[in-house]
Amino acid sequence: MEEIIEHPVVEGMEERKRSETSSFLESLSEHRSTQSNTHGSTQSSQRLLAYSDALISIIATVMILPVAHTKIGEDEELKESVQVLLTTKIGVYLMTFLIVTVAWAAHVRLFQVIVRIDDCLALLNLACMMLITFLPYTFSLMATFPENHLGILLFCGCVMVIGLIQALVVVYAFSRPFLLKEQIQTSEDLKVYKHHILQVILKVPVMCFLASIFSFIFLQLSYVLLAMVIFLPYISQFLKWCRSKATGEEETPDPEPLYQASEPLSKERLEAFSDGVYAIVATLLILDICEDNVPDRETVKTVYNGSLVSALSDYGPEYLAYFGSFVTVGLLWFVHHSLFLHVTKTTRFMGLLNAFSLAFVGGLPLAYQLTHEFPRNSNNELEAIQVSCVIIFFAGINQLGIWVVALYSEQETLHRYVRYAGRDHIFMLAKLALYPCVALGTFFLTCILSQFSASIFHLMEITVPLAFLVLRLLVRVALAGLRLVFCPERAIPRTILEEEQDALVT
Amino acid sequence: MEEIIEHPVVEGMEERKRSETSSFLESLSEHRSTQSNTHGSTQSSQRLLAYSDALISIIATVMILPVAHTKIGEDEELKESVQVLLTTKIGVYLMTFLIVTVAWAAHVRLFQVIVRIDDCLALLNLACMMLITFLPYTFSLMATFPENHLGILLFCGCVMVIGLIQALVVVYAFSRPFLLKEQIQTSEDLKVYKHHILQVILKVPVMCFLASIFSFIFLQLSYVLLAMVIFLPYISQFLKWCRSKATGEEETPDPEPLYQASEPLSKERLEAFSDGVYAIVATLLILDICEDNVPDRETVKTVYNGSLVSALSDYGPEYLAYFGSFVTVGLLWFVHHSLFLHVTKTTRFMGLLNAFSLAFVGGLPLAYQLTHEFPRNSNNELEAIQVSCVIIFFAGINQLGIWVVALYSEQETLHRYVRYAGRDHIFMLAKLALYPCVALGTFFLTCILSQFSASIFHLMEITVPLAFLVLRLLVRVALAGLRLVFCPERAIPRTILEEEQDALVT
Repeated sequence: MEEIIEHPVVEGMEERKRSETSSFLESLSEHRSTQSNTHGSTQSSQRLLAYSDALISIIATVMILPVAHTKIGEDEELKESVQVLLTTKIGVYLMTFLIVTVAWAAHVRLFQVIVRIDDCLALLNLACMMLITFLPYTFSLMATFPENHLGILLFCGCVMVIGLIQALVVVYAFSRPFLLKEQIQTSEDLKVYKHHILQVILKVPVMCFLASIFSFIFLQLSYVLLAMVIFLPYISQFLKWCRSKATGEEETPDPEPLYQASEPLSKERLEAFSDGVYAIVATLLILDICEDNVPDRETVKTVYNGSLVSALSDYGPEYLAYFGSFVTVGLLWFVHHSLFLHVTKTTRFMGLLNAFSLAFVGGLPLAYQLTHEFPRNSNNELEAIQVSCVIIFFAGINQLGIWVVALYSEQETLHRYVRYAGRDHIFMLAKLALYPCVALGTFFLTCILSQFSASIFHLMEITVPLAFLVLRLLVRVALAGLRLVFCPERAIPRTILEEEQDALVT
Repeated sequence: MEEIIEHPVVEGMEERKRSETSSFLESLSEHRSTQSNTHGSTQSSQRLLAYSDALISIIATVMILPVAHTKIGEDEELKESVQVLLTTKIGVYLMTFLIVTVAWAAHVRLFQVIVRIDDCLALLNLACMMLITFLPYTFSLMATFPENHLGILLFCGCVMVIGLIQALVVVYAFSRPFLLKEQIQTSEDLKVYKHHILQVILKVPVMCFLASIFSFIFLQLSYVLLAMVIFLPYISQFLKWCRSKATGEEETPDPEPLYQASEPLSKERLEAFSDGVYAIVATLLILDICEDNVPDRETVKTVYNGSLVSALSDYGPEYLAYFGSFVTVGLLWFVHHSLFLHVTKTTRFMGLLNAFSLAFVGGLPLAYQLTHEFPRNSNNELEAIQVSCVIIFFAGINQLGIWVVALYSEQETLHRYVRYAGRDHIFMLAKLALYPCVALGTFFLTCILSQFSASIFHLMEITVPLAFLVLRLLVRVALAGLRLVFCPERAIPRTILEEEQDALVT
């Protein structure tokens, strides 16, 4: 066994020496593939996890589709329909998102212990994925028929089977220790770890089993049980974090540090999951456009007198909505990307803030679609634009939250060079603050100048990408300006010019 | 500049020594993130490319949605409606898939030269992505109104802007050589490379510009021009490959080996793109189910007398279709995953076969949905089942094709240890051949026993995952059996038993 694990490292070193001239990234990838192939049946888990992340991120955002496809009548006021949406479909969407995120986090933790896979584990994981993708549907049944115990039974059934498959995965992996993380592999109390992990994993199915039994006796109690199961890790984590920050005491390190709820999530998997969500959300509107907005040959002939241009110009608002939402989601991804370049480890709380941010991002295409659907200067249009601003604001402010939380415990979570470099700090802060500030500004401007709301919103759509392009320059000019105002003796004009040149070069 | 590039390697080495005890994969990831952060504005391109791959794979499969949502009337014969589908929507889907794959391949080649990015490149790339995601729509306009030149103008416009943005990316990257691949960075004729790459990239926009001018004069010619642009790289590559195989001659190495059409595609990006397609396709049906198949409270009260169970049992075929398609797509992903564990480099031709395989996989959910939509033992059901078998067969046979092509030039494309190890070869072949064989078998069985077609199909759905689980065992038993038959003196019963035990352990 030892030989199997040590082999790749040695070979990797060789390869590194060999590939001095070729690209560093290339050597890295060769590296990884070498490592993944040292044993015929043992493989690196990387691609399996990437595929799982892609599946789970699609499923997390799926419940936005029923929301997006709800037709709002022309005569109805948006306010009422928004209230109807808010109570049921948006609620289902947000809950689904959180539930799937909890399932995803459990999956991440499990595969932080099991770092290599073989065919059998890959197939078991696929079975697990299939059941996770079915969770949103059972949940929406539960939300539509809260008094019927079929929804809760289906949901609990899925969760129990998922738990059993995960238990099977753990038992299987511990019977082949070379699949495990090195730290556990070399430790002597393998059995203790196994029992501990099984205990943690089987807690949820057992709770669900109880909930499904209670659903026959006292339905409300089973809902309470379920809510406890799902949100307990987040709530307890949040409380612990608050307490440790409030009292200033260090958290007492747990005796078994390998499978704790407070263990940081894998940064790479968090990135992969976020990428999946951003990608799906960015393309949601084009999916609809490709399906619905190709005009019929007959319609063009009869309604538009054969003029395709006029037929397409009727769809104008849809294209505009698509470009607007793509740009906004793309730029929020860009900020997320920049943020996580500085992060080395993601704590649970950062993961929670990230989930909130992603959940708001998921609502963006819908909001953008609404802004272009109503007649100009109507009350509906104004409200749709304000809802968009609020969503952008919360998506951005949660990203800012991640950064603030990371700064709180920068020793663990941030790269060494970020901790002391003032300018990078300010630049990052500017990037993160741009969207919340602009959204807030647009919101209040549309409140005051309500008859120009659409123009203000379009102006925002156009200026924000440009602002990102010249952000580095803007920040430096602003800093130089501030310095000029507050300590004029230090800010010699030459330095400012130099810095601007600097900004243009980098 | 030198310092910026050398730094990460040195730091990586340090980190490696430091993390002797921690997991190898962990050290790899730390590694990568360290490397990506040595310069405030320079970053590893990895995550940007992963996000691009996710976006492009979603867009490649998007045109299957209009096909999947076409309602087929009960009285209509499937044959006729299938023919209608085949001529327009499926054609549009396949063409879109190929066009997007071509755009993706161009993107891969570009970012094989540019291996690091900064904020400006990230934003330019997002703009490029936005236009690529718009291509399917312009193409479907072109297909619906072939005699109108608006579609072709829009398409050419998009391609031209994409080309210009890519040219901008190249100019920008060459003005900051530390963003480039080391091989080019250190070479002296940087300008020659730049002009060569610009030439290759701008060829397509220029052709599109010509096509858009011709569209006013002679529409058919512009279509010919477009077809040339899009399929030229594939066709020329295929012809070159055929010729070199037919004549047995080695391909003459090109004088500028860095940006040639025959340059292998990045294996990792091919995997990421495939993962995205498999993930979207696997969840296509659950997206529909979550949106459409949650029964209304009113409907359940009035139609089903308040019985939710009977309301849901009406959707039974949809769930079955979902599970069937998820399992099939999941297992095809599994085969793809196993296959690419052995591959080190992917040639263009392998990429083409992969694209074909993925295009067929995209049709699977649709086919599965059809198999469960028709009444039992109808002619429609039989044909839907046979179409499913054909699609599975082609998806599988193209994967097998990738393996065969890889074996042809195994020196470049396969891992060292695969080249000589007979047993791994046979096992891989069994994995790849399982789906085509089963699909073919099911097809002919349903031809003969047409009244049991549904049962045969369901049996296949259940047995194939089990077959994958015990495949290693099956192959060894089969091999031992063959040996027993053909050379009984070598096959001592003890060895077979030992091998079986071996198979159970690994």
